[in-house]
Amino acid sequence: MPSIAVLPGDGIGKEVINEGLKILNFMGDRYNLNLKFEEFDIGAERFLKYGELIPDSILKRLETFDAIYLGAVGDPRVPAGVLEHGILLKLRFHFDQYVNLRPIKLLNDRFSPLKKKGVNEINFTVIRENTEGLYAGIGGILKKDTKDEVAIQEMISTRKGVERIIRYAFEYAKNNNGKLTLCDKSNVLTYSHGLWLRVFEELKKEYPEVQTDHYYVDAITMKMVRNPEIFDVIVTCNMFGDIITDLGAELQGGMGLAASGNINPNTVSMFEPVHGSAPDIAGKGIANPLAAILAAAMMLEYFGRKDLSEKIEGAIKISIDENLLSKDMGGNLSTSEVGDEIVKILKRG
Amino acid sequence: MPSIAVLPGDGIGKEVINEGLKILNFMGDRYNLNLKFEEFDIGAERFLKYGELIPDSILKRLETFDAIYLGAVGDPRVPAGVLEHGILLKLRFHFDQYVNLRPIKLLNDRFSPLKKKGVNEINFTVIRENTEGLYAGIGGILKKDTKDEVAIQEMISTRKGVERIIRYAFEYAKNNNGKLTLCDKSNVLTYSHGLWLRVFEELKKEYPEVQTDHYYVDAITMKMVRNPEIFDVIVTCNMFGDIITDLGAELQGGMGLAASGNINPNTVSMFEPVHGSAPDIAGKGIANPLAAILAAAMMLEYFGRKDLSEKIEGAIKISIDENLLSKDMGGNLSTSEVGDEIVKILKRG
Ligand SMILES: CC(C)[C@H](C(=O)O)[C@@H](O)C(=O)O
Ligand SMILES: CC(C)[C@H](C(=O)O)[C@@H](O)C(=O)O
Repeated sequence: MPSIAVLPGDGIGKEVINEGLKILNFMGDRYNLNLKFEEFDIGAERFLKYGELIPDSILKRLETFDAIYLGAVGDPRVPAGVLEHGILLKLRFHFDQYVNLRPIKLLNDRFSPLKKKGVNEINFTVIRENTEGLYAGIGGILKKDTKDEVAIQEMISTRKGVERIIRYAFEYAKNNNGKLTLCDKSNVLTYSHGLWLRVFEELKKEYPEVQTDHYYVDAITMKMVRNPEIFDVIVTCNMFGDIITDLGAELQGGMGLAASGNINPNTVSMFEPVHGSAPDIAGKGIANPLAAILAAAMMLEYFGRKDLSEKIEGAIKISIDENLLSKDMGGNLSTSEVGDEIVKILKRG
Repeated sequence: MPSIAVLPGDGIGKEVINEGLKILNFMGDRYNLNLKFEEFDIGAERFLKYGELIPDSILKRLETFDAIYLGAVGDPRVPAGVLEHGILLKLRFHFDQYVNLRPIKLLNDRFSPLKKKGVNEINFTVIRENTEGLYAGIGGILKKDTKDEVAIQEMISTRKGVERIIRYAFEYAKNNNGKLTLCDKSNVLTYSHGLWLRVFEELKKEYPEVQTDHYYVDAITMKMVRNPEIFDVIVTCNMFGDIITDLGAELQGGMGLAASGNINPNTVSMFEPVHGSAPDIAGKGIANPLAAILAAAMMLEYFGRKDLSEKIEGAIKISIDENLLSKDMGGNLSTSEVGDEIVKILKRG
């Protein structure tokens, strides 16, 4: 029943999305999910050929799907920022995907970069605001290219935007019996993060069952390395979320294992591996598809099938234990072999 | 000859600054430095008693010194932000201390939180812009406390401000035969960090002998954990500098070992341990004075005595090897015993 728009994008995007689809097709058949897929050709090629990013006709079509499954965008032939803005951020903003959900979960101790922290300690979720803040794209430049130049970038926070993400985070923490941590810099960003802090304090009262705490963003990065076990759910603004989730990705073993969901339950949500298009290894069949597969699992969870998402994660764990991995992860399998092995494990399980 | 204004501040500030002064006095005597100290009573006590932060009369007096040696500010009886703004940020801005210099240097492998990285890998310097960006304090709130509330915080970058810090960083990298890395988010913060990137590209041409590279801030946090050895000198904006230097402090063994300099060679520079006032352990004589001592060493380097700064760092290394440390570092010495031991080592050396 759920319809999925597939946007493989650039570079290794196509290769890793193929493996995600392999898993989704297998799960779909086995559990009668009746998933419908349609692929859309978006990315550097289209931009270079036609000068267009996402044509309105495609945007309209995307609106009719239940979810978008995105590979990666980015190409050395296109100036930095163009595809990220014109595709990735465009979709996040167009569909008002206000939640960027990023689980930080170490699947195997050997992938932890930390001496003292393993799978028992590195397991939390970052909920990043995804539609405003410093990402608003608002600002300007006065006296450009002169010695008097002044550049202004606005961090804009609305009560509606802040409230809905903090509320989502409280609900998430409540449903997962977790503690909610606010990550901000309200001691310095007194306007924008002052609002965050006030709203957080207000919503606390509505969720007396949720334990909370509060750290400034600088302290969060230290704590993530020193005591990651203290975190269950962290809620934060767009910019800080960008930063701490990449740090988190490293703690869970690197980009090869990081997936993210861009969610708005009332519009179209989008699931993607966090990694980029990796043009240097594209087309060689050696890319690591695990993050894309984890993103597919998140999508199933979003469709209400947490049970199936857990099965996929379980299979990935086994594939890691048995070193059925691509080169970057210390194995020697090709991209499609990794997918095949996970299907085999799922068949067994 | 150099005159130093001593601001012990709050909590453990007084205790750790005492040890820094112990070392400075010893070095002053031995090497005829002719250091002059004068202490100023600034911090929570004054604020609670008189409602004043830094009176103008003191600010005027501070202008006559060569440097400020600051302990820590912060007190649970004072609302969050008040002392940080009224003292720490006030001094940084008043003296236009545009360079925040933060060495990230692991002194002993056992303090590294990372499995694969030790003293050979964790050794670089972050140069943080210290007078503008998101710290400008500019912005406002529309329709406060209504559902239509909008809060704006401005990230303001001036060409003068950006150019002088990037130039400082190029000079620093050149003098230390290091590579210079720009850390920004110019793909999203196109106005403010667009300026950073343009100025960086311009100055590159003036420093053809300095190797450079460029990462977005999210990627930097990953690289700091995965490959810290690739960095020599990182230059970045105020907000990102705040974040990545705390992460860096953790990599070098935590706040107990992190020192920073707030520098403007043309006004009065200020040296401080990065840690806070730690009210929970204040007055017990168990605080770790190493960061304050390292800040004192940075101050001597600033006065042109890099040789002496290296001697102090060498002595600290020995004290670490011999576990002549406070409890938080795994030793069992009191604050003042740690200082005494370092003096003994310096006497020997
Ligand atoms: C590519 C970039 C615009 C994007 C972001 O900054 O959000 C990426 O870093 C991410 O986190 O998804
Ligand atoms: C206390 C706070 C205002 C300060 C900052 O944000 O700069 C601190 O975190 C630092 O890094 O020195």
